[in-house]
Amino acid sequence: MVALTLLPAGVTLQVTSGATILASAHAAGADIEATCGGRGRCTSCRVKFVSGIVPPPTIMDEVQLGDALVREGYRLSCQCRISDPITVQVSPPVDDQSFQILGGERPAGAPMPVTIDAGVSKRLVRVTLPTEEHHQTSDLEAVLTAVGRTPDDCSPEVLKNLPKALREHGGEVTVASFGRRILSVEPGDTHLLTFGLAIDVGTTSVVTTLMELASGEQLASVSSLNPQAVFGGDLMSRIAFAQFDPGKLRKLQTRIIGLLNQHIEQVCRDSGVLAKWIYKVVVVGNTCMHHVLLGIDPSYVGLAPYAPVMRHPLTLCARELFLKVNPEARVCLLPIVAGFVGADAVAVALATRIDESAEIRIAVDIGTNGEVLLGSREHLWACSAPAGPALEGAQIRHGMRAALGAIDRVTLEGGDLKLHTVGDASAQGICGSGLIDAIAVLLDAGVIDWTGLIDLDHLDRLPAPLRGRVIKAGDERAVILARPGESGATREIALTQDDVRQVQLCKGAIASGAAMLQKIAGVPDDKVAELMLAGGFGNYLSIPSALRIGLIPALPEPRIRYVGNAAVLGAQLALLSEAERGRATQIARNIEHVSLAAHPDFQDVFVDCMNFPRA
Amino acid sequence: MVALTLLPAGVTLQVTSGATILASAHAAGADIEATCGGRGRCTSCRVKFVSGIVPPPTIMDEVQLGDALVREGYRLSCQCRISDPITVQVSPPVDDQSFQILGGERPAGAPMPVTIDAGVSKRLVRVTLPTEEHHQTSDLEAVLTAVGRTPDDCSPEVLKNLPKALREHGGEVTVASFGRRILSVEPGDTHLLTFGLAIDVGTTSVVTTLMELASGEQLASVSSLNPQAVFGGDLMSRIAFAQFDPGKLRKLQTRIIGLLNQHIEQVCRDSGVLAKWIYKVVVVGNTCMHHVLLGIDPSYVGLAPYAPVMRHPLTLCARELFLKVNPEARVCLLPIVAGFVGADAVAVALATRIDESAEIRIAVDIGTNGEVLLGSREHLWACSAPAGPALEGAQIRHGMRAALGAIDRVTLEGGDLKLHTVGDASAQGICGSGLIDAIAVLLDAGVIDWTGLIDLDHLDRLPAPLRGRVIKAGDERAVILARPGESGATREIALTQDDVRQVQLCKGAIASGAAMLQKIAGVPDDKVAELMLAGGFGNYLSIPSALRIGLIPALPEPRIRYVGNAAVLGAQLALLSEAERGRATQIARNIEHVSLAAHPDFQDVFVDCMNFPRA
Repeated sequence: MVALTLLPAGVTLQVTSGATILASAHAAGADIEATCGGRGRCTSCRVKFVSGIVPPPTIMDEVQLGDALVREGYRLSCQCRISDPITVQVSPPVDDQSFQILGGERPAGAPMPVTIDAGVSKRLVRVTLPTEEHHQTSDLEAVLTAVGRTPDDCSPEVLKNLPKALREHGGEVTVASFGRRILSVEPGDTHLLTFGLAIDVGTTSVVTTLMELASGEQLASVSSLNPQAVFGGDLMSRIAFAQFDPGKLRKLQTRIIGLLNQHIEQVCRDSGVLAKWIYKVVVVGNTCMHHVLLGIDPSYVGLAPYAPVMRHPLTLCARELFLKVNPEARVCLLPIVAGFVGADAVAVALATRIDESAEIRIAVDIGTNGEVLLGSREHLWACSAPAGPALEGAQIRHGMRAALGAIDRVTLEGGDLKLHTVGDASAQGICGSGLIDAIAVLLDAGVIDWTGLIDLDHLDRLPAPLRGRVIKAGDERAVILARPGESGATREIALTQDDVRQVQLCKGAIASGAAMLQKIAGVPDDKVAELMLAGGFGNYLSIPSALRIGLIPALPEPRIRYVGNAAVLGAQLALLSEAERGRATQIARNIEHVSLAAHPDFQDVFVDCMNFPRA
Repeated sequence: MVALTLLPAGVTLQVTSGATILASAHAAGADIEATCGGRGRCTSCRVKFVSGIVPPPTIMDEVQLGDALVREGYRLSCQCRISDPITVQVSPPVDDQSFQILGGERPAGAPMPVTIDAGVSKRLVRVTLPTEEHHQTSDLEAVLTAVGRTPDDCSPEVLKNLPKALREHGGEVTVASFGRRILSVEPGDTHLLTFGLAIDVGTTSVVTTLMELASGEQLASVSSLNPQAVFGGDLMSRIAFAQFDPGKLRKLQTRIIGLLNQHIEQVCRDSGVLAKWIYKVVVVGNTCMHHVLLGIDPSYVGLAPYAPVMRHPLTLCARELFLKVNPEARVCLLPIVAGFVGADAVAVALATRIDESAEIRIAVDIGTNGEVLLGSREHLWACSAPAGPALEGAQIRHGMRAALGAIDRVTLEGGDLKLHTVGDASAQGICGSGLIDAIAVLLDAGVIDWTGLIDLDHLDRLPAPLRGRVIKAGDERAVILARPGESGATREIALTQDDVRQVQLCKGAIASGAAMLQKIAGVPDDKVAELMLAGGFGNYLSIPSALRIGLIPALPEPRIRYVGNAAVLGAQLALLSEAERGRATQIARNIEHVSLAAHPDFQDVFVDCMNFPRA
């Protein structure tokens, strides 16, 4: 149970962790308006965070509230799940005009929210079937007449079962289109059923969300490890595996397509949506993942000058990629900037709107192949930050993704470590945000020194409980986070010296990327209006901890914001809005790619950034 | 050996059957000009037939000489193979301007020959690869810059092996396109290698020809039985097999695609061409074959009002049809008129140019699903003539296609049957032209009466050798065409009473189709300027025999012409010329389809047409 305080009433409720604010309030009899019934389709249930951690915005927060309100700490209470004690201000009922769905007037000065226009439309028509008297025609022509299209608008695939579809309900069919392109002709009335997928294919993690295209509602989401990882944890080793070997490339491609089909099956099962009603898919991912998914030889992406094979936005047919959604569904891949700044970076720019910013901002996307973006609407630079998979839980002794049971927060209380796990479940391992917290805490306590060494020489300075956790087994130094029984752990969960080194490599890459871009763009810390920290950390990342370990530039905390999995959010935006998808092309074209490896200063900066800040 | 007489020299040569006129003349030291070296690329070796059977024109005859000269009996001697004694007039050397390749001036009044413009082009370019200094680009962009295209012109398939192709010869690549569409990027210089396929998918027979697209030369040809035939010999039984059963439809589709891939393998082997150099494929076939090839449900094509699922011309990617040519090769299907007047009928119109005729002509395409076209440039009618597979050798006791050893001509000499076989090989069976000849001869001799009965009651009137061939075994009447040892036969080859009935059904369908169109269009025999007889008879069809059995309207013989396999010729025209392919769409739009089954007079006319004309 968690404490939820509602203002202005001043009432505090004890509510179930994981429930939405709206549902919890309603269950306790407290009033929050919800004109749309809590489906994320209006703004009436919005609340403003007064205390407690503000969670990353969902796509519906962005869509309904717009960027300005989101930044002020507004969230839709129907979308926002509680995991920590919070106090929120319930918005007063506003007059009816404000209960707008979309595209209406916004408060003066606030940016327009995203208008939903996924490009997919469905139309119910009654088709006049060919008759004995009017025999010089065809089934297709009858359909085209009904919807005002030409044969060029229709793929042959749609024709295969057209005769049966037309005759099953006496000519009543629903015609699904993407733009002018007819994707399917379905017997009877299915016009309310339009769904889409936003997919982020990362080097280590793959995230798939299923959305209703008309409303933008998120119906299901699944995330799992990229099964290619067994052939190489980071991009370079992944490329090396398949380099100049079409058979191995096919193996990588088959694995990722297989996983996406598992994801499709799962989100469909979770939501009750049939896969054939999925008509649009947006995929983001780094250049190598993008190429491998398409079966494009990535050999030279791994060799200087790291040229991608293609960079333009691409729209394919699901059938061509063997994705088990509607065979004619359009699969849209966002554009690429360079060999190591891919469609995922473009999606981050899209979601953070860094390209529209009047002031200079930095967006850091933490992933196995991370990227740093710096700039404003004047100019945008980007570089890659090959962090490695440590913060996604890979190559860490007891690492795991931010799934149920992952240690996601670590604090020092009463002289000992205190752990929090995702879903308050028994501790299974440690995820990225937990690692960052743990190292920050251990740096503060003096267990780890500024070079990253677990220091066994000054244990006597530590409080006894913590001291008992620092061990040396054989040659290996480690800190026991949880002994069997602690936090429900069934085995010992430790942070080893090697784990610390992995995190150092990771944060060194990211911090040096940011430092280099600042240097090249001539932007000192005090000229940076905001630093947006993105990544798939599941719950959230502690910004003080990130600052403590030097993962990010040492800006004042209020200027740093955790924006969640921005690559996924960008994919969702492009899924729900063709205008946003168009904007991605513009963004990709405007980003200036900085090739760090070619820079003479880079090695020194990188080595420097591997160390931790001295307290 | 066959006699070849050359005029004006008046020399008669004994030459090998099957050799070309040009090669035979040159081998014997006789002079015929051949500016292009006998490759069908100029008109200098043309001859005019003075006596002997004029063979159907090849595509190169049509291309180089044009329709007018072809009609006057001109042929290219480098393309024309000798199988019968002939006399030809060698054309006098003409001045240089006439040695035109293509597109030059024609003699006044003669129609323009077809200009070769297959739509496929290849360009050798040197691409500047991305460098360290110019790193914000991609392999594809480098290629597009070199050829002046955009990413939209390129399929993702082309990208798969692009990096390797670009680097194999230091950036020297050949870019193959169809229109603006980039089909492949090949390492090094392959710009002389462009090939295409013309395919006629008939209910019973499938014909594939491989052509060089730049010159129009036919490099190889293969013909075989449609392997779907085991699931139903005629269209209706083929449709019934797959009706409402997607599994069986897939079986039919798999069979035809499998056969086409065998054909591709064979023509490539025969010619030394690699399949990846085949960039364009034109397919014609009746509506059902067309639908089945594409995997489109043909169930309702077999049910009144026999509506096709689609009729427009279609261009697909070879990959989509699993054809093993260049994966990006364009597969062009000609348009359809109605459920039983398909792309094959359109191809016949294209090849015969009936749609451009000033006078009224009839074109009869004899096939399992035959069609009759009647009209001129004013108006064109078409109907289907479901002849059944008899004339393609199917459902005939000893029937076979016009392959080596098929009895293709039958005459009565010295009171006995005299047989000719394809290639003068040992008799293996009888093909369509042989069947028509045999029945014509037996009608004349009084062995078969006008109702089609093999008459056992008046045998005494027959010359003894022929009398000995008419037998009754059990209930079955038959005429022995060849006893073991005769014409090299290793078994008895007979024409049975059932065979005669099959031919009657067949010729009844065709004759009644022509009669009905004449009736509907109000065109009596004397208003028909020409009747063009088309079909895959391999060698040729005897027009007197066709008249004798009443296969065709009783026009004076000079007004009847055998035009060969016009559907194949039409496919070849569309393969070599995009203008001709465009013309096919116009033709399909202009043909008025006549649904015979709906006509009250049809049954009577059909029954009448089943009988043979009384002598």
